Amino acid sequence: MIEDKNQSRTSLSELGEFGLIKHLTQNFKVQQATTVKGVGDDAAVVEVKDKQVLVTTDLLVEGVHFDLSYMPLKHLGYKAVMVNLSDVYAMNGNASQITVSIAVSNRFPLEAIEELYEGIYLACKTYNVDLVGGDTTSSTKGLLISITAIGEAKEENIVYRNTAKPNDLLVVTGDLGAAYLGLQVLEREKQVFEVNPNSQPDLTDYSYLVERQLKPEARKDIVKLLHDLKVKPTSMIDISDGLSSEILHICDQSKVGCNLYEEKIPLDPQVISTCEEFDLNSTTIALSGGEDYELLFTISQDDFSKIKGNPHLTVIGHIIDESQGANLITRAGQQVKLTAQGWNGLKS
Amino acid sequence: MIEDKNQSRTSLSELGEFGLIKHLTQNFKVQQATTVKGVGDDAAVVEVKDKQVLVTTDLLVEGVHFDLSYMPLKHLGYKAVMVNLSDVYAMNGNASQITVSIAVSNRFPLEAIEELYEGIYLACKTYNVDLVGGDTTSSTKGLLISITAIGEAKEENIVYRNTAKPNDLLVVTGDLGAAYLGLQVLEREKQVFEVNPNSQPDLTDYSYLVERQLKPEARKDIVKLLHDLKVKPTSMIDISDGLSSEILHICDQSKVGCNLYEEKIPLDPQVISTCEEFDLNSTTIALSGGEDYELLFTISQDDFSKIKGNPHLTVIGHIIDESQGANLITRAGQQVKLTAQGWNGLKS
Repeated sequence: MIEDKNQSRTSLSELGEFGLIKHLTQNFKVQQATTVKGVGDDAAVVEVKDKQVLVTTDLLVEGVHFDLSYMPLKHLGYKAVMVNLSDVYAMNGNASQITVSIAVSNRFPLEAIEELYEGIYLACKTYNVDLVGGDTTSSTKGLLISITAIGEAKEENIVYRNTAKPNDLLVVTGDLGAAYLGLQVLEREKQVFEVNPNSQPDLTDYSYLVERQLKPEARKDIVKLLHDLKVKPTSMIDISDGLSSEILHICDQSKVGCNLYEEKIPLDPQVISTCEEFDLNSTTIALSGGEDYELLFTISQDDFSKIKGNPHLTVIGHIIDESQGANLITRAGQQVKLTAQGWNGLKS
Repeated sequence: MIEDKNQSRTSLSELGEFGLIKHLTQNFKVQQATTVKGVGDDAAVVEVKDKQVLVTTDLLVEGVHFDLSYMPLKHLGYKAVMVNLSDVYAMNGNASQITVSIAVSNRFPLEAIEELYEGIYLACKTYNVDLVGGDTTSSTKGLLISITAIGEAKEENIVYRNTAKPNDLLVVTGDLGAAYLGLQVLEREKQVFEVNPNSQPDLTDYSYLVERQLKPEARKDIVKLLHDLKVKPTSMIDISDGLSSEILHICDQSKVGCNLYEEKIPLDPQVISTCEEFDLNSTTIALSGGEDYELLFTISQDDFSKIKGNPHLTVIGHIIDESQGANLITRAGQQVKLTAQGWNGLKS
């Protein structure tokens, strides 16, 4: 069978701005009882009643935050939503609505934007979140996605960054470093492809890493788990820039120090083997890699028995007095000052 | 006195992302009692109690929505906030918080971004709105601003677009067309400057037009005025794309028609004289110019006596049955079908 290389490409300007928004959002159904009015008026209307509203926003720029040569648009749409939902869960809240604004250059046909919205749709459906608004415009270069997530939580359940106390335990969900390594693997494959366009990448040995990079999942399940376990963290943050940067945010804002134990940092076997292959230090990757979208939180020691042995949660250290600093305790027992070397979007 | 051409320019990467956000937002003070937590955590926290939450977002792209050769950054910051607040007021609500995300190329020094934030600061202060979050990143080209505004209103006070009824009066605030003409004047001066860089523009005759383009004000005062007059519009929208486009939104969504009277459209004397100078039809400019950020609404005829003679409000037509269409009644008494020729951000 001969493939039709001339696949239909619809120019965005054919639809116009209102036509495009209508077209892209037509399949999105309202799932949240709190969504009074979604897309289609000057503003969306949300009902909250006796809860507080959580608002968070993130901006993703092509060439800075993602590379479309290995990031499929559907995955990008999904991930862009995850990045925002993760911030709502990091407040111990429930994400309920998002707005999505995109700026696209005319190199993108309608079909490409449809793919992006398929990923957004899947994320909304899976996480039970409504798309309630946004803006669509042209850009002079590349693709840019700005998402704002709205969530809600009862006042007494919200967890901030600035309320960790000495002797609290430092806990992390899942495992760390895989998303960053997934990016390294994809970058390497891109370079191989540029030298030899006929090469077929075999990513079997890196499947977990690549999935963590291309299709991260925000930890909505942890908010439910903590609720079920009757554990309210004393502070919480999501890990977007790397473990050390996030720990330092908690320490700075709570005016405390911490001891983080290198041997406790949870690593997937693929992270360990790929670090060996790439000659990278797995602790450095976990501390500074970023994009893991796991949750980092502190709990009172009294709650330790409730989380002990839970496969999703790992105690990696404890909070100490501010005067004692924020430290990494290495496998060799040495105490090293923690420094933030997380990803910085302004450096590129 | 010799001017120091070597003004200090600080590179954005010197501060880093967190340093930059901290630096830019340090002067913003929380003004709204509903802001529980502003900048500095995973998400902002807003208290709403017995009201509903309004959410709206807009994306402004350099080279598409603004031209920095005649739009000072401080004005741009102010206007970017106005564009969003206007959408909240168009729901008959009170704007309370904004998030501001920017993507900037490295051609912008810190001082330029500070100017932008000065405008944002002034808008927040004047309109009593809190900056509660955002994102700052680099772009591969130009400047991009994404703002989300949060507002609130009692359920019974919110006004939608889809609730106009036949026999309602069509009312507009302020006057129309000036912002678009201001842009034409600035574009002309830019061309003159490109030919002769020593020319000094004299904008005296166009001061109102230029101000409407560079420093529009969202009509917060109208929300208060309508409240004081005890008038609840039957439908409302803000005029961002031009009068005809907005009227058609109300007609489409309310499933009604309308008669708009050309002779009733409010025009400033500068609009009339400049239209003559530029050989433009002032009705066309009012219908399609856009960026006026006035409010367009419908009221029950029973409320006419309450608004009659108010200098801020002009009755420009009335709502009719859907089957009769959306029409412009010209000065000559001819009936012409209204068509949307508003500004389309995707066409450029």
